[in-house]
Amino acid sequence: MADRLREALEPERIVRLEDDAVVVLDQRQLPDALVDLRCRNAEELAEAIRTLAVRGAPAIGVAAAYGMALAAARGASLDEAYETLAASRPTAINLKWALDEMRPDPSRQRAQQIHDDEVERCRRMGANAAELVPASARILTHCNAGGLATGGYGSAVGAIRAAWERGSVDHVWVDETRPLLQGARLTAFEMEALGIPYAVIVDGAAASRMAAGEVDIVITGADRIAANGDSANKIGTYGLAVLARHHGIPFLIVAPTSTIDPGTPDGPAIPIEERDGAEVTGRFTARNPAFDVTPAALITAIVTEEGIHRAPFRASLPMPVRSR
Amino acid sequence: MADRLREALEPERIVRLEDDAVVVLDQRQLPDALVDLRCRNAEELAEAIRTLAVRGAPAIGVAAAYGMALAAARGASLDEAYETLAASRPTAINLKWALDEMRPDPSRQRAQQIHDDEVERCRRMGANAAELVPASARILTHCNAGGLATGGYGSAVGAIRAAWERGSVDHVWVDETRPLLQGARLTAFEMEALGIPYAVIVDGAAASRMAAGEVDIVITGADRIAANGDSANKIGTYGLAVLARHHGIPFLIVAPTSTIDPGTPDGPAIPIEERDGAEVTGRFTARNPAFDVTPAALITAIVTEEGIHRAPFRASLPMPVRSR
Repeated sequence: MADRLREALEPERIVRLEDDAVVVLDQRQLPDALVDLRCRNAEELAEAIRTLAVRGAPAIGVAAAYGMALAAARGASLDEAYETLAASRPTAINLKWALDEMRPDPSRQRAQQIHDDEVERCRRMGANAAELVPASARILTHCNAGGLATGGYGSAVGAIRAAWERGSVDHVWVDETRPLLQGARLTAFEMEALGIPYAVIVDGAAASRMAAGEVDIVITGADRIAANGDSANKIGTYGLAVLARHHGIPFLIVAPTSTIDPGTPDGPAIPIEERDGAEVTGRFTARNPAFDVTPAALITAIVTEEGIHRAPFRASLPMPVRSR
Repeated sequence: MADRLREALEPERIVRLEDDAVVVLDQRQLPDALVDLRCRNAEELAEAIRTLAVRGAPAIGVAAAYGMALAAARGASLDEAYETLAASRPTAINLKWALDEMRPDPSRQRAQQIHDDEVERCRRMGANAAELVPASARILTHCNAGGLATGGYGSAVGAIRAAWERGSVDHVWVDETRPLLQGARLTAFEMEALGIPYAVIVDGAAASRMAAGEVDIVITGADRIAANGDSANKIGTYGLAVLARHHGIPFLIVAPTSTIDPGTPDGPAIPIEERDGAEVTGRFTARNPAFDVTPAALITAIVTEEGIHRAPFRASLPMPVRSR
């Protein structure tokens, strides 16, 4: 089974540009089916982003870069493509970063370079983060910050992969991550594909695993990191950071520099996407904020491709890297 | 709609004894359908308890009391009925308490008395707990500690009802409570029936609601309270208690004295039921502990029908009350 699953984690399977479409692996259908979704213009790609067919802040950025290249190749308005794609999800900053990268040179080569760079950054940040993973680690992660979320290799999952290759990983606790179960559907899928021992738990079970001494480190990705280190990530991440602090467990954010937004001073300035309550329950009234913000004070370290960054983050965080 | 829903919350609809069966409202089918399940002997009732057709520690106790009365009326072995029912769920102590109550006098009248007493206790503990609810309260609750869980009126939801009747409730945050969604299915159902303003949130969203200053008090039930006040409740409760402490929010347990187990010295001595991982995800590996333990140090007060009890709980907690 692992071979078939690994195919889904190849960068060009997750997102690629063809002559007439940006083609994404439809993550809504995982793990039940591997289905390509063809987005023939910026509107269709924005819809794929809004509905989470392609998701994960870096992967959204890569897809948007291909979307700009597609618009340019087909002679569509770049300004319209920019605006349409930028509005598709408000919290992830990588999206805007990639669009700004593409505007001056909306070529296929440039988009491919952004994609290749993101994957290469993941490998570097994974190696950096693995330095912080203790021997025989029991790691807890939330949502999917894997290859599916970054266009290949993964950020938090990249750290787990790098630590696993060094022989430092005993077990991975995978938060199922309601409401859309990116942990139970996607991260568990990646753990299966990579042959890393894991178990899915409901989000409410993380606290008692920590109390039982079964979690050595918490590692998540991020959708936007403010200049002071406050980090937005999938709803539930902030609670994990509080729990990790209560139990004396290190809490790491692993994300590429494209996730850092020097223009956002702190967490309260990060827009939090509120999604349809029907994603939680179709019958009764629900509220459905998709992200929360973990204050820098609860973060042991932020790891990027540039290295390991610690408080005070305003001084230690690198600026987003421009593509070559 | 509220009238039709309220019918489901009548004590005799939740669980009752007929001549040939203990009849329970099948909570697995709520809120989609109101279906009675007829349990014609202790084995069938134990199966209904194991599969959560009837659930909630006090309601399980009441159903088991009727099960003993049914066994006695039909000339079945009381010892076998006792053992079968006692083994059906390991964490809830009310089950064993009710069985011990019934053994010396397994009559229909005695079982009805236990049921009536549980509902009356709920009313008293609700009134007691309402004293601790501030004006215009935004209350957060977890799982279903409502009438469905107690055989009528509810423990934590009883406290919300009593506070609502005093005009002290602004809003109720209902944790959906994975994996079986007792919050999203049952507590939301009860809020609708009672006309109390609420919204369901995913369990991972509680922390950010607290950080936003939108939670004034957390109120949950319990499945077993140890002699020192450590309290087992639905998985996720312990994490809420840690989060409440971090945010300076009071954390209340509301439960009848039948939930207190003087024979269990502390939390580590409480057996935690581990259920099938398939309740979490059918495709991948999962762990599924159904309960966690909140240490007494994180509990602001335990409220029973006897009053408001504070640390040190070993001195303040009342003994379980014997039925009249």
